[in-house]
This record gives sequence, C-alpha cells and structure tokens, in this order.
Amino acid sequence: MYPNMEYPDKLEKLVKTIAPKGLKHMQTLMCGSCSNDTAIKHAFIAYRHRERGGNPTEEDLFSAMRNQAPGTPNYTVLSFESGFHGGTFACLSLSHTVQVYKVDVPAADFPCAPFPRFKYPLKEFKTENRAEEDRCLVRVREIIDERKQAGGPVAAVIVEPIQAEGGDFHATPYFFRNLQQICKETGAALIVDEVQTCCGGTGHFWAHEAWDLPEAPDFVTFSKKLISGGYFFKEEFDPKFGERIFNTWMGDPSKVLMMEAAVDVIKRDGLLELIRESGACLQAGLEDIQNKYPQHLHSARGSATFCAINTTDSALQPTLAASLRNKGVLVGTCSTNTLRFRPALIFQPHHAEIILDTLESAVKEL
Amino acid sequence: MYPNMEYPDKLEKLVKTIAPKGLKHMQTLMCGSCSNDTAIKHAFIAYRHRERGGNPTEEDLFSAMRNQAPGTPNYTVLSFESGFHGGTFACLSLSHTVQVYKVDVPAADFPCAPFPRFKYPLKEFKTENRAEEDRCLVRVREIIDERKQAGGPVAAVIVEPIQAEGGDFHATPYFFRNLQQICKETGAALIVDEVQTCCGGTGHFWAHEAWDLPEAPDFVTFSKKLISGGYFFKEEFDPKFGERIFNTWMGDPSKVLMMEAAVDVIKRDGLLELIRESGACLQAGLEDIQNKYPQHLHSARGSATFCAINTTDSALQPTLAASLRNKGVLVGTCSTNTLRFRPALIFQPHHAEIILDTLESAVKEL
Repeated sequence: MYPNMEYPDKLEKLVKTIAPKGLKHMQTLMCGSCSNDTAIKHAFIAYRHRERGGNPTEEDLFSAMRNQAPGTPNYTVLSFESGFHGGTFACLSLSHTVQVYKVDVPAADFPCAPFPRFKYPLKEFKTENRAEEDRCLVRVREIIDERKQAGGPVAAVIVEPIQAEGGDFHATPYFFRNLQQICKETGAALIVDEVQTCCGGTGHFWAHEAWDLPEAPDFVTFSKKLISGGYFFKEEFDPKFGERIFNTWMGDPSKVLMMEAAVDVIKRDGLLELIRESGACLQAGLEDIQNKYPQHLHSARGSATFCAINTTDSALQPTLAASLRNKGVLVGTCSTNTLRFRPALIFQPHHAEIILDTLESAVKEL
Repeated sequence: MYPNMEYPDKLEKLVKTIAPKGLKHMQTLMCGSCSNDTAIKHAFIAYRHRERGGNPTEEDLFSAMRNQAPGTPNYTVLSFESGFHGGTFACLSLSHTVQVYKVDVPAADFPCAPFPRFKYPLKEFKTENRAEEDRCLVRVREIIDERKQAGGPVAAVIVEPIQAEGGDFHATPYFFRNLQQICKETGAALIVDEVQTCCGGTGHFWAHEAWDLPEAPDFVTFSKKLISGGYFFKEEFDPKFGERIFNTWMGDPSKVLMMEAAVDVIKRDGLLELIRESGACLQAGLEDIQNKYPQHLHSARGSATFCAINTTDSALQPTLAASLRNKGVLVGTCSTNTLRFRPALIFQPHHAEIILDTLESAVKEL
C-alpha cells in the first residue's frame, strides 16, 4: 500500500534536501504546465489577501461564484517575449514561442515585456548587454505601472532563468536581482519557472542559485528532470485556510519516490561537479568551432551543459540537426537558428569531445 | 523498461474496450483539470480550422506569438451555473461552485447558462421539470447567439452529466439531446465532462450512454476512477498537423496499466450489473427514509449508486454527515444542503442496507 505512513517523513526529508535556499514549503503537482498554472493561482490569492488585509468576505465568496468583482479580481501576470511556460490555457497566454502550440487558442489579456537579447561573445559586449538588460527592466516597471493605472494590476511576474523554447536566451544575475527588486517594490510575486532548468543541468541544482539573490524568489516551479511536478513557495504565501490549492491527485507519490532516488544518485555520484566540468569542455569546444567556422556558427553560450549555439543562416539549423542525428548525436533546436544541447546528468567530458568532433565534421560538410 | 514495444498495442486494445460509442480517438493526460483544459484548447483549434477552412496561415502563426488576432481568436466556452470542471485558470473560469476554489482568482470572460433545477419526486413534477429544461435550453441558444453577435463566438459547450460538486443536479436525456442539437446548429463542440461520472458509478460505463444520443459527443473527458486522465474525441476533431496538443508527460503509461487492470476487473466481476442492483436498493431506501422523515430529508435522486438526498435545513447537512461518520459511514456533502453517496464499484446491496440503517438511526437522533 503506497503512500504509506512514512510518506510525510519522506516528503519532509526531500524538501530539506532539495529546497532552494530560503524556501521551506513545497506543493507537489502533476506536470510543468499545471505547476505554473497553480503557482499563478497561488500568487493571485496571496496578492488579494494582502490587498484586502485578510480572508475573503461573504461578498467576495458570493461574487466569485459569478466571476464578478470583488471576489473575482482583474489581476494579470507579466511574462516575457519568447518565454514559454506550458500548454494550459493560462500558461499559453504567458507563452510567446512555438507557433503551433499557441495559434488558434484565445488568450487572457496578460502583459508581456521584452527579455534581454545579448550580443556574443559576452566579454566584448559588456556595455551593450548591460544597456539591453536596463532597457528590459525599465519596460517591466513601466508595464506594471501602466496595468496598475488601468485597473489590472500585475500580481505576479513569471520568468525562466534561461529562455529555453524561445531560443536559449540568457540574462545576468544583475537582471534577475533588479527584477526581484521591482517585484518587491510593486507587490508582484516573482515566479521563477525552473521546469527546464531545475535539477542540475546548469551546474547548480537550481539555476537561480547562480544569481545570489538577497532573498529567495516567491515561487520556484519544477518538473521534467525532477520527475514530479510542483513548486516551492515562501512561507508568507501560505494560503490562510484549507482547500485553496486543490487537485484530486495533487502529484503522484510514486513520482516522489523516483525524485528521491534521482536526487540521491546526483549526490552520491557528484553529478553537479561533473556537469560543471563537462559543461566547461562543451562550451570551450563550441567557442573553438565557431571561431574556426564563423561563416556558419556564432553566439556559443550556456550555463554548464545547458548550452547552445546559433547558425548564421536559419536554413542551416535543420540541416545541421539532421546531419548530427545521422552521425549519432541528438541535438534539439529552438527559435529559428539555434541548436541546443541538453545532455543527461551523467554526461562526461569525453562525451563532450564526441559531440564536438561530430559537430565539426558536420560543419565541414556544409 | 516501460513503456515498452507493446505499449501502443495496449493503448489500442484499451481504446477498443472502453471507448464511448462513436469515438475512436483518445488522448491520455494527467488529471481531470488538464483533461478539460486541453479539451477546450482542442475544441478552439478545431473551431478555428473550420472557420478558416484549413491550416493556419503565416499571418495566423505570426500574430499568435503576440496574442493578437487573427492567430489568437476571441473565442469563448459556455459552461453551466453550479458546474465544476477543475482547478486550472481556464477550468476555474468554467466552474461556478466551491467558493474557496474560485475566490480571489481572475476569470476569463466565458459565458454561463442555467442548468435545470428539478423538483422531486420526478413522477409528480414531469411538466414543471420539462419546462425547466426548456427554459435552460432557450437560454443556451440565446447566449450563443449573443456572444456570436458580440464577436466572441462560443467554440464549445462543457457540461457534466450530473453536476456533482454543485449539488448533484440531474437533467434528462431530453435535455442533453437538445443541447447536442443546439451545439450542432451553432458549430460549438459538445464536451461532456465525465471526470466524476465515468467508469460505472451511474450504472453505465459512461454516464452519457443513458441519453441515447443520435451521435457521440464531440469530446468526453475522464479521470478519477479511470486513474489516468484524458479524453476521447471525434475523428473530425483530429488536429491536422503535429504537436498541437502537447505536454511533456502526456499522461503516464503506468496509470494506463492500472486503468487496464481496473477495466478488466469491472468486466470479470460484472460490476456494472452489481452497481445497478445496489443503486436501486440505495435509492429505494433513501426514498423510504425521506417519506418517513419529510421534516428532515427530501429530493432523493440518482443514477445507480451515484445518488444524493437533500436536508430540509442547510444546518442539518454537516450535522448528519458528522453523525454518519461517527457511526462508520463516510458520505460527501455538496451544495449547501446535499448529502452525496459515492460508493466504490464493489458496493453490494447489503452495504446499501448498512448505509440506510445508519442514516435512519442518525436521522432519528436529530
């Protein structure tokens, strides 16, 4: 019979083992989409609780049944251009990439801000990239102000540490620290969507650990590599009475067992250290290749093994991906001209060498 | 290693075994909420495909990335007062019951129609109840017309065979046949939400089998007793190119194995016949008790063991539920004055006797 009497202890141990710094509350769910969908619901509830200064009134409860104010507030969530947060109706409204997912589906009127677009190599474009981050941060604040004045306040900001589906776009810790500061000043919850970046691929267990934030994000969502879906959240966001966050299954205890086993292996085998080492090899090799073939490749970038490179011509993207596949190396594609690398956590430096040799041989054949 | 090479065959066999009449396509998903959320997305895509007369254009794909027309259409879904369809943002917008689920969460501007409110016993109120069904059907058609004129056409109608969370409200096959006819005439997809009613509790494997519809509903969603989430849909709703319905997990093969085992036991042990027999005992007994104690109980109703009874005073609802629990019988509550019965499929007539004796003893103590 499972879950058994030991299940609460297992959950508690797991939370202690993997919780991002400053977060002690975890909600298990099914998949990445419903984790993000539920996290924004959770943020709405917390925003309204604070705005009202307490629990819902009878009038709130009554009007909510009719989708009317004050029980049904006109809140919004801010997302970023080229962000992707999942396939439910709400998550699609927050997503701005992968055309076949979004086309023909109506959207909620949620605002969208630009996400930095860096020039590479980073060392050469420090000033330009900082200005680009500042441009996006200014726009975030402007949009939050505009929506507040228009009566549709931004209750949450949702962001990926690395925009994955959109094209492997990165920002610096400076950007995320300032984004958190804007959220604090405007009262919006900061939801860091770590569905793709959680569990080690970036060289940290949680990608946002690289930002050295003065305090934890309000919500951190996860799925994929962590097998169970779910999210961590700050204690102050704890719903004040029961059943407010509810789903029949609320995650799957058997998936929590698998998550525990995966986390044990990561620790036992030192996979985070390995991934940092292998990632350094992969990134250095990608830079070497782009320097040798600048007519075909540019903008190598990444965090540990979570890395990518762009083709100069978007027609080269599917050609190179197919050529690599035919030579035994599976790479993903994203945006219109990006090859993305997502090796497993057991990826070693000599695997990086195989990928790099294969990539160079494919490029030579162009 | 699972899923293995046999998995497609397993799925195909399962579809053949359990598919509602006229439906051959099944999509596995995670839970009831994401099954409903995905079914409405699927219906939006099909409505737009038909309206446009083909696949999305480049302009559709481009504008969808910006949540703008024509790629992002202004479609709506019609639901019913006191209906409940799950906890995602979109499903909550379609739900109109359980205050603590809905309050403080914004809603999409989706229309809502009245659902019949019957008087009991049915035999005495045939004329009144038919008039009530007609009133609701007229309103459905009016709302669909209004929304079309206002530029927010109703792409789908979602309805439960028995409104469960809302208060165990029933309608007759006449209502559902006419609802299907309205959907056909207006081009809205009919989504029958069988998350609570699937898998036998109503005496049919699918509750909508009792309606003798001239053709299958366009979508039938499921979860709970069937363990896996998902939905069946008509062939004409098949998305015309890949990846349009997408989620990383797309259901869980291990849950499909459990579903197969559950379905095998239902057949092997003749549980549908048993449930009809036990349900007849339970309902007859509830009617006896309400006739003996009309000052406390009324409106006994149900389909097989999926049944309910109302207390005359809403204060009696928690009192009786607590008293029954203390005597060893767990019953659910819904709406403000309803006790609902949801026994497992192995429920036998002698179990019905135990429940009825316990209920009568609890009522006597009032």
